[in-house]
Amino acid sequence: MGVLSRIGIALDSNLLKRFDHSIAQRGYTNRSEAFRDLIRDRLVAEQTATPDAIVVGTITLIYEHHAHGITEKLTEAQHENHELVVSTSHAHLDYESCLEVLIVHGKSAKVAQFADRLIGLKGVQHGRLVMTVPAHSIEHPHGHKHSHKH
Amino acid sequence: MGVLSRIGIALDSNLLKRFDHSIAQRGYTNRSEAFRDLIRDRLVAEQTATPDAIVVGTITLIYEHHAHGITEKLTEAQHENHELVVSTSHAHLDYESCLEVLIVHGKSAKVAQFADRLIGLKGVQHGRLVMTVPAHSIEHPHGHKHSHKH
Amino acid sequence: MGVLSRIGIALDSNLLKRFDHSIAQRGYTNRSEAFRDLIRDRLVAEQTATPDAIVVGTITLIYEHHAHGITEKLTEAQHENHELVVSTSHAHLDYESCLEVLIVHGKSAKVAQFADRLIGLKGVQHGRLVMTVPAHSIEHPHGHKHSHKH
Amino acid sequence: MGVLSRIGIALDSNLLKRFDHSIAQRGYTNRSEAFRDLIRDRLVAEQTATPDAIVVGTITLIYEHHAHGITEKLTEAQHENHELVVSTSHAHLDYESCLEVLIVHGKSAKVAQFADRLIGLKGVQHGRLVMTVPAHSIEHPHGHKHSHKH
Repeated sequence: MGVLSRIGIALDSNLLKRFDHSIAQRGYTNRSEAFRDLIRDRLVAEQTATPDAIVVGTITLIYEHHAHGITEKLTEAQHENHELVVSTSHAHLDYESCLEVLIVHGKSAKVAQFADRLIGLKGVQHGRLVMTVPAHSIEHPHGHKHSHKH
Repeated sequence: MGVLSRIGIALDSNLLKRFDHSIAQRGYTNRSEAFRDLIRDRLVAEQTATPDAIVVGTITLIYEHHAHGITEKLTEAQHENHELVVSTSHAHLDYESCLEVLIVHGKSAKVAQFADRLIGLKGVQHGRLVMTVPAHSIEHPHGHKHSHKH
Repeated sequence: MGVLSRIGIALDSNLLKRFDHSIAQRGYTNRSEAFRDLIRDRLVAEQTATPDAIVVGTITLIYEHHAHGITEKLTEAQHENHELVVSTSHAHLDYESCLEVLIVHGKSAKVAQFADRLIGLKGVQHGRLVMTVPAHSIEHPHGHKHSHKH
Repeated sequence: MGVLSRIGIALDSNLLKRFDHSIAQRGYTNRSEAFRDLIRDRLVAEQTATPDAIVVGTITLIYEHHAHGITEKLTEAQHENHELVVSTSHAHLDYESCLEVLIVHGKSAKVAQFADRLIGLKGVQHGRLVMTVPAHSIEHPHGHKHSHKH
């Protein structure tokens, strides 16, 4: 992780009690970790809203494999954007329905446009894009890769 | 506010730097205040998702006052739910468009249902419900009112 | 409203049955109105994401009137941005809590920045911005006002 | 898909023009398909909000593989909830960061709880749950599987 900072914050006691209760229910055993997650959520939201930011993400698609040559159209769209697709995996949900999830990587605006294209394909029932940023990029938005060894 | 607690949290230094930068841009002058807002956002989201929780909120409606007896229908719907409506205010946006905002108060599920009814009225172009909880309820969800004086 | 178009769409019968059930529960009596609302929701989301688009909206604030000179700070921030504020209304929620809702009007990016400033004020417990666009702007994004009479 | 219905809807011509423009930009070549996607989005949102509804989804996790025995903890959590996990795939984003995406299937409330546990693990930098429903379940919420052949 790199250097750790310790900071103090002042909170109304009742607010703190409620927060501790909420994070215990969500399975946190450590208050600092819960704060780090709140902060990262906020920073990720800010960063993925920037069209040129490099993001990673997943595109989740539900479709019926029988429909309309959908398998060919999905394959074709992915090949045309192969530089954005890291990998794909697939689950057969039932006799007709498939879930396919693509791991994607690239500029925020391009990833969003690619997701729109896939979700808009005739035969895709429902789709969702999740964008996030690699751990480093949250902490160093201007992006030189770490070279220090661990 | 009541009793203040001071707690320490441990954070990666780069993450902290990024957070400080982000909150400065949003106009915070105080890190504790930014943390309190993050926590309250999360608690408010959890609480307003509970159908029986008492919430306050606003319903924002955009409509064209010419359309379809809309003024009468809005008035009627509000009177039938008068126990939910604290107050209403209104802005004339242009020759045809109105914005009306209702301050509402009541059980989360009832408020949501009322908002659905208003937003679904023929003539309402667009609407949005915001639900939140009074400051006290964030900190004491099980609701006895404070009686201490300040 | 202007000229009406009638269009035909093809839908799986089961999907249509489910949609009709869902909109009946939300109080729609008319399928076309439900479709119009779905479309407007989508267009409004696209438009308010454009920093230069003219939006209208509401900023909902929850605060404790005792706290930290908050009333003065809210008043000051509003005066400095008076060109964005159409009107304000206020509800006394309980002994300590206030809800204030501002009707705002201006460029999307400026409205968002103003909302961030208000929500970030020490003493504001929770806040939310809703942005939308006047009915006309949904239908004519490049904005010449209608001058036809009705 | 089953039986198709054709319905007519009435829309303001300008609203329709704007909608056609918007869907063309998102790559739709067919208006009916865009309407079906709007409807399904809405129905999916309603259904995944029901704790007992059977959902499918993806949990996207970003973490640093060096950190805190995170690999073991992720593996352990997944085995304890193996009935929810359909499959997992993984991408090595850079020297330190991993993206892992789980395809999950089960009751909405259990899936959400499992996602909370994973996202809350020390070492997970950021996570997101996407819930949706198989195509059939959107159209037949009460769930008997189709047995008709195609």
